[in-house]
Amino acid sequence: MVQPLKVGLAGLGTVGSAVVRLIDRHADELTDRCGRPIVVSAVSARSRGRDRGFDLSRFRWHDDPVAVANDPEIDVLVEVMGGEGGAAEAAVAAAIERGIPVVTANKALLARHGTRFARRADETGSSIGFEAAVAGGIPIVRTLREAIAGNAVSRVYGILNGTCNYILTRMEREGLDFAACLAEAQRLGYAEADPTFDVEGFDTAHKLALLTSLAFGTEVDAAAIHVEGISAITPADIEAADELGYRIKLLGVASRTEGGIEQRVHPTMVPKSSAIARVDGVLNAVAVDGDAVGEIVLVGPGAGGDATASSVLADLADVASGRRLSAFGRPAARLKPYQAARMKKHAGGYYLRFLVHDRPGAFAAIASHMAAHGISLESIVQRRRAPHEDAPGAATPADAQPIILITYETTESAVRAALEAIENEQTVIAGRPRMIRIEKLA
Amino acid sequence: MVQPLKVGLAGLGTVGSAVVRLIDRHADELTDRCGRPIVVSAVSARSRGRDRGFDLSRFRWHDDPVAVANDPEIDVLVEVMGGEGGAAEAAVAAAIERGIPVVTANKALLARHGTRFARRADETGSSIGFEAAVAGGIPIVRTLREAIAGNAVSRVYGILNGTCNYILTRMEREGLDFAACLAEAQRLGYAEADPTFDVEGFDTAHKLALLTSLAFGTEVDAAAIHVEGISAITPADIEAADELGYRIKLLGVASRTEGGIEQRVHPTMVPKSSAIARVDGVLNAVAVDGDAVGEIVLVGPGAGGDATASSVLADLADVASGRRLSAFGRPAARLKPYQAARMKKHAGGYYLRFLVHDRPGAFAAIASHMAAHGISLESIVQRRRAPHEDAPGAATPADAQPIILITYETTESAVRAALEAIENEQTVIAGRPRMIRIEKLA
Repeated sequence: MVQPLKVGLAGLGTVGSAVVRLIDRHADELTDRCGRPIVVSAVSARSRGRDRGFDLSRFRWHDDPVAVANDPEIDVLVEVMGGEGGAAEAAVAAAIERGIPVVTANKALLARHGTRFARRADETGSSIGFEAAVAGGIPIVRTLREAIAGNAVSRVYGILNGTCNYILTRMEREGLDFAACLAEAQRLGYAEADPTFDVEGFDTAHKLALLTSLAFGTEVDAAAIHVEGISAITPADIEAADELGYRIKLLGVASRTEGGIEQRVHPTMVPKSSAIARVDGVLNAVAVDGDAVGEIVLVGPGAGGDATASSVLADLADVASGRRLSAFGRPAARLKPYQAARMKKHAGGYYLRFLVHDRPGAFAAIASHMAAHGISLESIVQRRRAPHEDAPGAATPADAQPIILITYETTESAVRAALEAIENEQTVIAGRPRMIRIEKLA
Repeated sequence: MVQPLKVGLAGLGTVGSAVVRLIDRHADELTDRCGRPIVVSAVSARSRGRDRGFDLSRFRWHDDPVAVANDPEIDVLVEVMGGEGGAAEAAVAAAIERGIPVVTANKALLARHGTRFARRADETGSSIGFEAAVAGGIPIVRTLREAIAGNAVSRVYGILNGTCNYILTRMEREGLDFAACLAEAQRLGYAEADPTFDVEGFDTAHKLALLTSLAFGTEVDAAAIHVEGISAITPADIEAADELGYRIKLLGVASRTEGGIEQRVHPTMVPKSSAIARVDGVLNAVAVDGDAVGEIVLVGPGAGGDATASSVLADLADVASGRRLSAFGRPAARLKPYQAARMKKHAGGYYLRFLVHDRPGAFAAIASHMAAHGISLESIVQRRRAPHEDAPGAATPADAQPIILITYETTESAVRAALEAIENEQTVIAGRPRMIRIEKLA
């Protein structure tokens, strides 16, 4: 008689409930695949009474997720509570100490404690599967952990937050501003009541930190990430991008540079012809550039109970089948210290938008500051100002007209210095200049 | 002292040579990942003298690939010779009998012998990794084998042959005919001197047979696949598709139907807005529809030495790390017999193109045959005949004008019967009607 894999499930929200339903629905199939059944044995959740569409009485109930982790009957802990500390951290730590495998969808937790947990798991014989923590149902964790083993990765990047992508897609399609699209996303349940975590890029940063470790074999360092969100993006930027052959996406990008590994999250101009530009709405996508494989792109649903639970089940199938995988694709002791590239050294093209006073010499002043900082211009677009265009953060004189510059490859420090010099000339531009980085894509 | 994984490499063509170079280039990284080095130990190839850019003298040479498989020093056989029988079959069979793992890029071999080999490998303790056999560097085998374990798959489909996709992309972009684009593909090395295997869909069928088994847990049955190639596609079809909002791609599709599992390879009209429609040139793409995950799409290079070798290395890393995986995602004894859906029962929309004689009642005859077979029409397009449009296989009267019908969902048998009835009316159409199936995509 084969022993089933007994799951302790900490968290019965959208994802946890979907895990229970999927295990029920595909019980026979999972047994076929793994050679033994997967059964939920013990559970904990904030509310015991809530109707989740299934009967809780068949599971051992614990009020405390740590008690689930310590339940002697369970073989694996599934943590789908969320939160970068507190009970989630305690439950995961307890399971690791016991030496049983952990499967988690918690990016915030791993972005903060990933290296430490992975190291300890290697010592105790535990393991950490987190396919569900990055890009929902897209199998990017196992792709980086296993499929690109024979590659040196030069870059991994992606659309990792469906809320932001939905908002940007709506802004582009409907010509609406950020606030209107955010409100719509909230109405549809795609954005939280407090959307800061998503729209300011922090959720993307957590996921990127995990991808970076997997792709480059480095310790997790989310604190080193340069993070900008999408709340300052205007319809004028999106229109200008469109005219210039680009779309604006919130990307997380990790790339190998001479000065170390860059990790950055910011609104990004991507060529319309690129695969990533065509990923719309709540979809996620991740691209990996490897020296052997070239570029592979994975697209799919980045959130939602069932899609995320699908990734939890994939990790559970690994455990049930007896496949132990190192959390970050190699023993944690072999993870290299993360050497951050300085953002000021970032090299790339830039989109710059100014509202320029309509007086002699104004544009010449901008051009000369660019030249003084060694920045070459690929294109210059002077557009008639649309009615909705206002310079953020300043009263805008009626005479100010937008000018857009696209630079050739230059450095972040050159661009910042040029912008500062231009801003310091009081009579040249109204308001603050807009700067959006351009990502070079095939 | 950790023992290295010693590889026996049968085949030193484009892929085999790339495997050697990749293992050399990433030796330290592979050791980090797998906990032990991977080294090529013994080799065989057709020509010993050929310059491959590396020194063969460090490897044990065998004239016979079976001798490589039986070399007592090797821990794993990598078979990258090709061919559905002969020496490749013998070498793989020998390694399986010995109980050592096999890694192969050989779709033809597995399409024919996959079930038998997988069953025997389970008995002897061997294993079969074939990530490289389907869609080159795209990790679709491990996605289906592992990542979608918690899903019931309803459909898997993809662009699995870069040669065909290159030709179709060129035809679309340049308005050239099939023969001209094939010649160009041959000049660029994207097509073989004898292109039949690629352009008539057989290569796609071999790959599809493997995807079907992985996705549905069934025995491999390539013989059951309905196969049509792209050689009959004309610029007129591609133009008409474009006008109607479609692109034409050679797809391999396996889908679950009430009557069994459909496996079909044919030119397919896909909506321009679909992810698969935008996969151009020599790229491959595979999409998986699962009940939990929704649709995930993987895009990347489908061929080339390095991309294919990247997938070989991924499988070798599994072996070196001690991960034994069932070839088709479950023990071979659990593979269900493949129950073929009959192609006549295929349900879907159809594009039909006729050259209709310009005489009273001709179109009425077509319309009434459609109605008699219960086929409803979604659109009817009468176009002026372009100079290059000829009815294939018939002398075309100067008065014949093209008419295009797009049907609502109907069945293959209804369409075939209607076309036969129309063809039997001698004075209605010139030449043979064209029929291209439309795939319903999100």
